[in-house]
Amino acid sequence: MVGRGLLRELPRILGELCPAHTYAVISDSRVAELYGLRVIEEVRAAGRRAELFTFPCGEWNKTRDTWAELTDALLHAGIGRDGAVVALGGGVTGDLAGFVAATFLRGVPFVQVPTSLLAMLDAAIGGKTGVDVAAGKNLVGAFHLPRFVLTDVDTLATLPKAHIAAGMAEAIKHAVVADASYLEAILADAPLIRERDLPALERVVMRSVTIKEEVVAADPRESGRRQVLNFGHTIGHAIEARSGYSLTHGEAVAIGMVAESTLAESLGVAAPGLTAAVRAALKTFALPIAVPEELSDADLLESVQADKKVRAGKVRFALPESIGSLPQRADGAWTVEVGPEAILQALAASR
Amino acid sequence: MVGRGLLRELPRILGELCPAHTYAVISDSRVAELYGLRVIEEVRAAGRRAELFTFPCGEWNKTRDTWAELTDALLHAGIGRDGAVVALGGGVTGDLAGFVAATFLRGVPFVQVPTSLLAMLDAAIGGKTGVDVAAGKNLVGAFHLPRFVLTDVDTLATLPKAHIAAGMAEAIKHAVVADASYLEAILADAPLIRERDLPALERVVMRSVTIKEEVVAADPRESGRRQVLNFGHTIGHAIEARSGYSLTHGEAVAIGMVAESTLAESLGVAAPGLTAAVRAALKTFALPIAVPEELSDADLLESVQADKKVRAGKVRFALPESIGSLPQRADGAWTVEVGPEAILQALAASR
Repeated sequence: MVGRGLLRELPRILGELCPAHTYAVISDSRVAELYGLRVIEEVRAAGRRAELFTFPCGEWNKTRDTWAELTDALLHAGIGRDGAVVALGGGVTGDLAGFVAATFLRGVPFVQVPTSLLAMLDAAIGGKTGVDVAAGKNLVGAFHLPRFVLTDVDTLATLPKAHIAAGMAEAIKHAVVADASYLEAILADAPLIRERDLPALERVVMRSVTIKEEVVAADPRESGRRQVLNFGHTIGHAIEARSGYSLTHGEAVAIGMVAESTLAESLGVAAPGLTAAVRAALKTFALPIAVPEELSDADLLESVQADKKVRAGKVRFALPESIGSLPQRADGAWTVEVGPEAILQALAASR
Repeated sequence: MVGRGLLRELPRILGELCPAHTYAVISDSRVAELYGLRVIEEVRAAGRRAELFTFPCGEWNKTRDTWAELTDALLHAGIGRDGAVVALGGGVTGDLAGFVAATFLRGVPFVQVPTSLLAMLDAAIGGKTGVDVAAGKNLVGAFHLPRFVLTDVDTLATLPKAHIAAGMAEAIKHAVVADASYLEAILADAPLIRERDLPALERVVMRSVTIKEEVVAADPRESGRRQVLNFGHTIGHAIEARSGYSLTHGEAVAIGMVAESTLAESLGVAAPGLTAAVRAALKTFALPIAVPEELSDADLLESVQADKKVRAGKVRFALPESIGSLPQRADGAWTVEVGPEAILQALAASR
């Protein structure tokens, strides 16, 4: 469900699509203040039980420790198997609260209520939940589909503008891997999007959600086609983790897309021009496009090799052929195996 | 697969039913010495990669911390999405290694190779994985079905005799909730079983596995019939946790069955005589049948109320009507809601 003013419908929709004895609403400290208390009050006003559980905001809190603390807080509050979790917030909240729901008493239902652009158009769709560990991002987790995703575009009015740009990195990714005309639409709407124009943002959310849902429906467990959504993420995750999360996920993915486009061109997978087009789109939203100086190629390579996409010891990348096209390869795979030298070269060329 | 000498077939069966780039064999310190090193060698001799990961034996190590350490060790060893986990050991190992597999890179395949009687006839069947937390047993976990369960009854030759009795507590539970003739067979075979006679133990494993598989197949997610297998476990888990795991799971379940049979009689769910029959069967294997003096009724009640089986704040118990019979209730439920006074009375009467 994508729309404006939908948040006030949440109590009714919860009762219809996810009936529960008690709703455990999980938010970070910032979103709890902006929307959490209001949601709790409205759910209670509708005659249902609800409790608010919070954790400090920031990707660096998406850990097993925070997951354990939230789990213990739910247990302490007496939430039982007939409880349900409501993830109210950005991508970190959705991943973390989703993993709490996936593992609480061996799994309770949950609902996604994304309040960041990145969560609305990407993270909340598709059932991936999990936390980061020292070895890398999202290496611990579970597939656990939400009962529904309720996206109230009005909540973007309070989103810091830097987070709008971070969300647009994922929107650009969707366009690059699946739909060239979407990239044109994004560029045409860019001035409105940068100013947080809500109708323009709603168009972006709708289009990205449609792409992501189609890809996920074709391959829920990421054994094939869903891998195309990893474009920019193999190097992006390494950059994000090595930066100590001083870069947001969207910023790291932006740099990752530049480096992986460069890789695609150098391997001959993509025709020349892909990287230039990706860079231009990212610059429209003032997203970073160069690997930060302080991160060494060797450290990034080590992190890339610790990624989930490693199979049989080799790193596999989802590489587009051109804007809007990342087709299945001749060998049936959706990804390309790449050795360490080519990765190091692409990193060096993206500085 | 249940049989004798099956362990040496493991490398071949792994290759056929659970192909993987690397097998992460997880065992506790004791089983690692007895069987782990041998399994690793045999899998490698068959031309496949395998690594052994161990943790200190004991139910008190079935924690989120041990799970996190094992997960990090697998990541450090470079196990990827094309890896698979082999749980080699008793019930603790199966639950813990299963939860590692369920959450490692959002889920990798796993295989159960139970080496304790309790794991063979109960814990390894049905896909429940998880760890204990301060608030209670198995409160964090996931459903994650093994690709196969390979049960080599010969490994029981090295099982301490006290663990044979602990396994028999679950076998008696299966008989009480599903098959009166099975209880007769157990009592007839008791002298052989106590002496670890392998053919007699194989008969027990086969019969229990058949019962458990049938119940689980009818209700994999425990929304109905599978709840009958919780007989003895609601109070049993509380006793086990409150004893600081000085009682084994089987011993605690034995006492739990006595207390819950008493509860069934006092509520009029069961005819008089059920508790006496349960006690007699447990005594045949020198299992404890009285709530330990050092555990107070109030503390046990608090733990019972923290259990997963609590719904809408009320505790629900799976209570047999008679030996071999735990049918669906007139209201369609498989469990009975019980208030705190009746629970306290049953505890007091079981000392």
